[in-house]
Amino acid sequence: MISILIIGDGNVASHLYKAFSKVDAVVVTKIKSRNLTVTPNADVTIIAVSDDAIAEVSSKIHNSFVVHTSGSVAMVSLNNKSRKGVFYMLQTFSKNKAIDFSEVPFCLETENEKDYILLELLANLIGKKVYGINSKQRKALHIAAVFVNNFTNHMYKTGSDICAENNVSFAILEPLIKETAAKIETLSPAAAQTGPAIRKDQRTIKEHLALLNEQQQEIYTTITKSIQNGN
Amino acid sequence: MISILIIGDGNVASHLYKAFSKVDAVVVTKIKSRNLTVTPNADVTIIAVSDDAIAEVSSKIHNSFVVHTSGSVAMVSLNNKSRKGVFYMLQTFSKNKAIDFSEVPFCLETENEKDYILLELLANLIGKKVYGINSKQRKALHIAAVFVNNFTNHMYKTGSDICAENNVSFAILEPLIKETAAKIETLSPAAAQTGPAIRKDQRTIKEHLALLNEQQQEIYTTITKSIQNGN
Repeated sequence: MISILIIGDGNVASHLYKAFSKVDAVVVTKIKSRNLTVTPNADVTIIAVSDDAIAEVSSKIHNSFVVHTSGSVAMVSLNNKSRKGVFYMLQTFSKNKAIDFSEVPFCLETENEKDYILLELLANLIGKKVYGINSKQRKALHIAAVFVNNFTNHMYKTGSDICAENNVSFAILEPLIKETAAKIETLSPAAAQTGPAIRKDQRTIKEHLALLNEQQQEIYTTITKSIQNGN
Repeated sequence: MISILIIGDGNVASHLYKAFSKVDAVVVTKIKSRNLTVTPNADVTIIAVSDDAIAEVSSKIHNSFVVHTSGSVAMVSLNNKSRKGVFYMLQTFSKNKAIDFSEVPFCLETENEKDYILLELLANLIGKKVYGINSKQRKALHIAAVFVNNFTNHMYKTGSDICAENNVSFAILEPLIKETAAKIETLSPAAAQTGPAIRKDQRTIKEHLALLNEQQQEIYTTITKSIQNGN
């Protein structure tokens, strides 16, 4: 039986607690970071708090093996006195949406091989896509994730706003959104590009800009320029 | 038996020809726009050429009912002398990827009800999502599609570049990309947003910018500002 302590109260902590609760081979406890005065002992302590709080929270933990779940914080930023690691799940977690952990990539880092095997075991108990990723690679992945998740979602938001302003259902765009995401499994994003920017169709670009508000225009112009420059 | 003539040589013309070829109730012919000297007669003539060429190509056609397939060209831009319409498929077409037409939204516009029923019949022969969309709505949809498809794909491209520069497999991001697209079927894009921009996590934003090239920085800054302004 492996004991896990999860510290945190956000979406990652909640989804992780829920997933490990269903596994017979582990016993899992979850506490809020402000209740750290008494820290239950555990084989693995998973800190799932905001990036800014990781250093301080980890300094208060005296358990033997402490990992964080952040994509952008280096392993060495953990301030516990004993063994350190990272248990980063490269997925987007929302309060009201269930997560299929079999589709979640687990990006693991540890100081030694034995701890890696332990984290790998835990990841395989709730998921199946497990990668060894060092702190530098993880930071790159996290930045790439901001583009493909946060910024992509903002493209959806802008599309949704344009539909609402023109009395058209955003649902009409859902098949296109799904196909755009599915396409890159068989084509590279560079090969998959279509539309007025890559075609250098200046007339359509000008017409589009005339119908957008200032902030939308700024996004349109910046990304169009980048597509046309081949960046 | 309904006769269809498709004029064009691009991805839309090819996929449409392939789809109608499988339908017993229609007979379909495809010609290139430069071979227009002899135009076969047809119940419906579908012009699937570049936006800039629609006016000129349509002026050469003497068939009774002529439609184009463009998201951004108004129906009245057709220069044929008889009935006009639009048969716009809101989907991304690539040469080497099959299209599931049952998932393609057909956005139809005609001058009269009888022609609408004919286009609706054709759309239902190869697909099932059919919408009546006027030229103003279609232009809005087309702009929104540029954001959710072309610009989203450029976010994938940028993520892919960052992975390549840091020796990490872009495939690790595929589940996140799929989940990001799936999420908006249950959450609005505004509600689905996560990440450093919406959290106003300036430290992470600064760290990310330090690792990007100039063009990537410009995209990062522009979209982050837009997310933070709630636009």
